[in-house]
Amino acid sequence: MTTLSMDTAARLADAGHKAAAALDVRMNIAIVDQAGHLLHFSRKEDALLGCIDLAQRKAKTAILFRMPTAALGEISRPDGPIYGIEWSNGGLISFGGGLPITDTEGRVVGAVGVSGGTADQDVEIARACLAAL
Amino acid sequence: MTTLSMDTAARLADAGHKAAAALDVRMNIAIVDQAGHLLHFSRKEDALLGCIDLAQRKAKTAILFRMPTAALGEISRPDGPIYGIEWSNGGLISFGGGLPITDTEGRVVGAVGVSGGTADQDVEIARACLAAL
Amino acid sequence: MTTLSMDTAARLADAGHKAAAALDVRMNIAIVDQAGHLLHFSRKEDALLGCIDLAQRKAKTAILFRMPTAALGEISRPDGPIYGIEWSNGGLISFGGGLPITDTEGRVVGAVGVSGGTADQDVEIARACLAAL
Amino acid sequence: MTTLSMDTAARLADAGHKAAAALDVRMNIAIVDQAGHLLHFSRKEDALLGCIDLAQRKAKTAILFRMPTAALGEISRPDGPIYGIEWSNGGLISFGGGLPITDTEGRVVGAVGVSGGTADQDVEIARACLAAL
Repeated sequence: MTTLSMDTAARLADAGHKAAAALDVRMNIAIVDQAGHLLHFSRKEDALLGCIDLAQRKAKTAILFRMPTAALGEISRPDGPIYGIEWSNGGLISFGGGLPITDTEGRVVGAVGVSGGTADQDVEIARACLAAL
Repeated sequence: MTTLSMDTAARLADAGHKAAAALDVRMNIAIVDQAGHLLHFSRKEDALLGCIDLAQRKAKTAILFRMPTAALGEISRPDGPIYGIEWSNGGLISFGGGLPITDTEGRVVGAVGVSGGTADQDVEIARACLAAL
Repeated sequence: MTTLSMDTAARLADAGHKAAAALDVRMNIAIVDQAGHLLHFSRKEDALLGCIDLAQRKAKTAILFRMPTAALGEISRPDGPIYGIEWSNGGLISFGGGLPITDTEGRVVGAVGVSGGTADQDVEIARACLAAL
Repeated sequence: MTTLSMDTAARLADAGHKAAAALDVRMNIAIVDQAGHLLHFSRKEDALLGCIDLAQRKAKTAILFRMPTAALGEISRPDGPIYGIEWSNGGLISFGGGLPITDTEGRVVGAVGVSGGTADQDVEIARACLAAL
């Protein structure tokens, strides 16, 4: 797989929403392609409205730097080497919930961004999405 | 139905993509809720990248004024009574492809925006989405 | 060729600037990849400053809709079927000077945007870029 | 030299990309003129997409304050005298990778911004660009 299909993206999102239901949280899940363009977005009704943008920014951040958003956050704090990187690219999000999607050959083919719960819950659901790959 | 659910939105989008496949066009389909917030978005791989934004703007335009985008376009041309309305609300789209979604009691509960083909094709697919309601 | 390399982009730009020198105009030349991300930009010193943005927008417009910007302009005028499309995608440019770049198998692999002269000159230079492919 | 030419900018960028190849990193290199306007940009294929914007912002930051971006960062941290300056000018970047370009008479004639590796690597490549002056 070198290109993420719409159907695969929908399958990943479904897996995330199922895992979120088990946690009793309502999530926004965004999936972008290799170049950062939105491929799929879904919001459980009544999920936090502010998280529509967050989910998309997390996915964008993860693909732009090909790393989990939480990993970026570890080096972008005031005492880190890339403090303030969130200013770039129209606004990045550097806490947990964004993960690159890697194919079986190790190529980054997209990213998922989850928002709606705590940062820890968001990460857990993002992982649930990837597990469906 | 007074609220559009995520599952209903996904069903509408699926119907649209199936109809698009029959036309051999690749579509971006956005569905927003009653308040204009994105509920569901899906892009067939290889659909035109410029239509990611267009689909969302069409859905937004349709819900903001509770009318088809093409109907807005008829009165927003240079000789129309609301010429230039596209400047408002961060940018509207006033050609075909955006339609309000109405429940069985006639209440507007959301809107769909379709982009990827000609304006006529976009309208046809938006109608196919609504037919799945 | 399925991916446009930095070196190829530089070669195309050089060809454009040489052709521009023959016309005695000073150009801004932007080249984006298949996904619309900037790959190469070069501005002849003393070229019009307002054309830095125009060149990049033309290249972006051409790749987002996989067509020459002038072709988009023909259908986006007040009496055209997609009037007002320039509102989308953060601002499009729909007059001449943006051209898709197609590989030998007919796949669109990027786009070039030229700005600095008249629209006709911009188109001529964009063609000169493509001729160097 | 009081004005940075397109050809000189291209030469500086080439030197940077050669040095980056020796480090086995893929870089985005932006060069702006004395007024902060983009003169040259080049991205090695497969370089991180998030660094397209970063490279340009670093160059912009370096020319706006006529100092290395890392030097600005030393005084813009939470305990520094100009904390929060990154909010200004549409978003600045205050970690390493942006350097002013100075002519033989000591006048600042432009700036280079490099992004794609670690901040240390970015600084090293920015210096390699200047060494080609």
